Amino acid sequence: MNDERLRMRIVSVIGSATCTEKERTHAEAIGAGLAKHGIVIVCGGRGGVMEAVCRGAQLRGGLALGLLPSLDREEANPYVSLALPTGLGQARNVLVVAAGEAVIAIGGGYGTLSEIGFALKLGKPLIGLGTWKASRSDGSAAGIIEVGTPEEAVSACLKILGLTQL
Amino acid sequence: MNDERLRMRIVSVIGSATCTEKERTHAEAIGAGLAKHGIVIVCGGRGGVMEAVCRGAQLRGGLALGLLPSLDREEANPYVSLALPTGLGQARNVLVVAAGEAVIAIGGGYGTLSEIGFALKLGKPLIGLGTWKASRSDGSAAGIIEVGTPEEAVSACLKILGLTQL
Amino acid sequence: MNDERLRMRIVSVIGSATCTEKERTHAEAIGAGLAKHGIVIVCGGRGGVMEAVCRGAQLRGGLALGLLPSLDREEANPYVSLALPTGLGQARNVLVVAAGEAVIAIGGGYGTLSEIGFALKLGKPLIGLGTWKASRSDGSAAGIIEVGTPEEAVSACLKILGLTQL
Amino acid sequence: MNDERLRMRIVSVIGSATCTEKERTHAEAIGAGLAKHGIVIVCGGRGGVMEAVCRGAQLRGGLALGLLPSLDREEANPYVSLALPTGLGQARNVLVVAAGEAVIAIGGGYGTLSEIGFALKLGKPLIGLGTWKASRSDGSAAGIIEVGTPEEAVSACLKILGLTQL
Repeated sequence: MNDERLRMRIVSVIGSATCTEKERTHAEAIGAGLAKHGIVIVCGGRGGVMEAVCRGAQLRGGLALGLLPSLDREEANPYVSLALPTGLGQARNVLVVAAGEAVIAIGGGYGTLSEIGFALKLGKPLIGLGTWKASRSDGSAAGIIEVGTPEEAVSACLKILGLTQL
Repeated sequence: MNDERLRMRIVSVIGSATCTEKERTHAEAIGAGLAKHGIVIVCGGRGGVMEAVCRGAQLRGGLALGLLPSLDREEANPYVSLALPTGLGQARNVLVVAAGEAVIAIGGGYGTLSEIGFALKLGKPLIGLGTWKASRSDGSAAGIIEVGTPEEAVSACLKILGLTQL
Repeated sequence: MNDERLRMRIVSVIGSATCTEKERTHAEAIGAGLAKHGIVIVCGGRGGVMEAVCRGAQLRGGLALGLLPSLDREEANPYVSLALPTGLGQARNVLVVAAGEAVIAIGGGYGTLSEIGFALKLGKPLIGLGTWKASRSDGSAAGIIEVGTPEEAVSACLKILGLTQL
Repeated sequence: MNDERLRMRIVSVIGSATCTEKERTHAEAIGAGLAKHGIVIVCGGRGGVMEAVCRGAQLRGGLALGLLPSLDREEANPYVSLALPTGLGQARNVLVVAAGEAVIAIGGGYGTLSEIGFALKLGKPLIGLGTWKASRSDGSAAGIIEVGTPEEAVSACLKILGLTQL
């Protein structure tokens, strides 16, 4: 038996429930790009960036998990293929980040900022597309891999996961 | 767009990391039975009953999620198709239960007992196969739907989910 | 510096938000009995058994922590001295149990059953006063120390914590 | 009965387990300053900034809660008066933030950054002393109330809590 073949690869995508049109387009392209390579997407399952990345994945036949804040499955956006209610409220952010082998942040509000902190704390490779910049009091910056396009975000992810670009 | 078609159905299966041969056989049959109907299995992702139910699902081409206590993906048994590290320790039990539209308990130790309590608290339909019995001080019993075989467990699940037996 | 002197001793008390008059009386007596010995009480911070145990503690000048399911401090009963909103919903049950050096269960519904499972899973000494009975499929019972009166519950706790009865 | 009198006031203090001597001094002064006004401190219960703030509180006769990542009470620093093991790992950061009526951040690493994100997401007043600066892609900054001294941090807290400076 070959575990490697069977175990699905996972990337977390984080971003806000309210987002700009550009962020939505970016998220959908990233969802599609990851799905094309058979990568499962984990996100917070709601609207905005989360909905767009799920939409991109689903239109490409990919799988998108939504870790929902409430206990109500109906809270998921229509493109979530697997809706997991948690009942943990904002603490579900920790789970979104913990699930991925890498994390992509698109835009984002304070919830995304908390996820960025968690991703870095857990040592996850973190790719940022138009997201928060953060620096310590000594001026040193948070270790975010900044990219300029959705294609670069997907490409960086593939490299981190040791996968070949199709 | 038809959400019903795209949204996967989920059943949680709970049981101990150490189990009897009979419980293992039961769990594998239940995993296979649910997978046959396209139902995704969510479990704790470790050994014993959890491994057996994942094995049953995977051999049938089904999907099995493992919500792991640690942050280490390698903690998952080899039949988990989607390993989600949580880092929440035993608190991940709450998530296992919250994820399913119904819950099946097979045998089980104290962790399973906590999950039974949560499932009932959250109002989840709970099917038990050789699992805990619990009664209040006034003698009234916990609302577990007791079944005698894996087939009955799957059949009860299908009815709860409004699916037709194949 | 003497750490032993400064570190407060903690006992968790679990039970339902809706309870009988007898359970309320028992809970209040236990709260008072623990407070008399300087033991801090941790509970779920809401009504019923939780309110009664906090009341007993506070009337004796003791300290009662309430770990609340929501993010709203106002959810706490009026006798909680320290209200800690968690936002974790029912998952806060795990925290209530994890906080204590011992756990006392009074009566209780399904939430209490989940806490009993967690307490036993975490190896916490668990004292039951008119609470759930649970047995495995082989007939073996859960390891609950059953007592008949609030005084016996407090007394059992003191012994577990290595404290002398006043 | 007067709830206001009995319900303790709580401020969360966040910062790293490894810190500079200056951060340690600041944290201890803040712990002492809050304790002087009868405010209970909630923190992560470990070393560095967490230990210093607890030390400051305890030397002033105050109360300091430590919400620990592990299930092991011994993980707490010696100045924690109430050690609450959670077993939630880094997810306990969410609880630290949720507990306070206001949050003070001192210096800090990635864990602190996650807590800053959560504090802002939950709408908590957040006071920063030599901590992270964060800005969105449009250049707008996170809503942190920056102060320059421990005294200013305590003073800002008192104002937020509606308390009078002693």
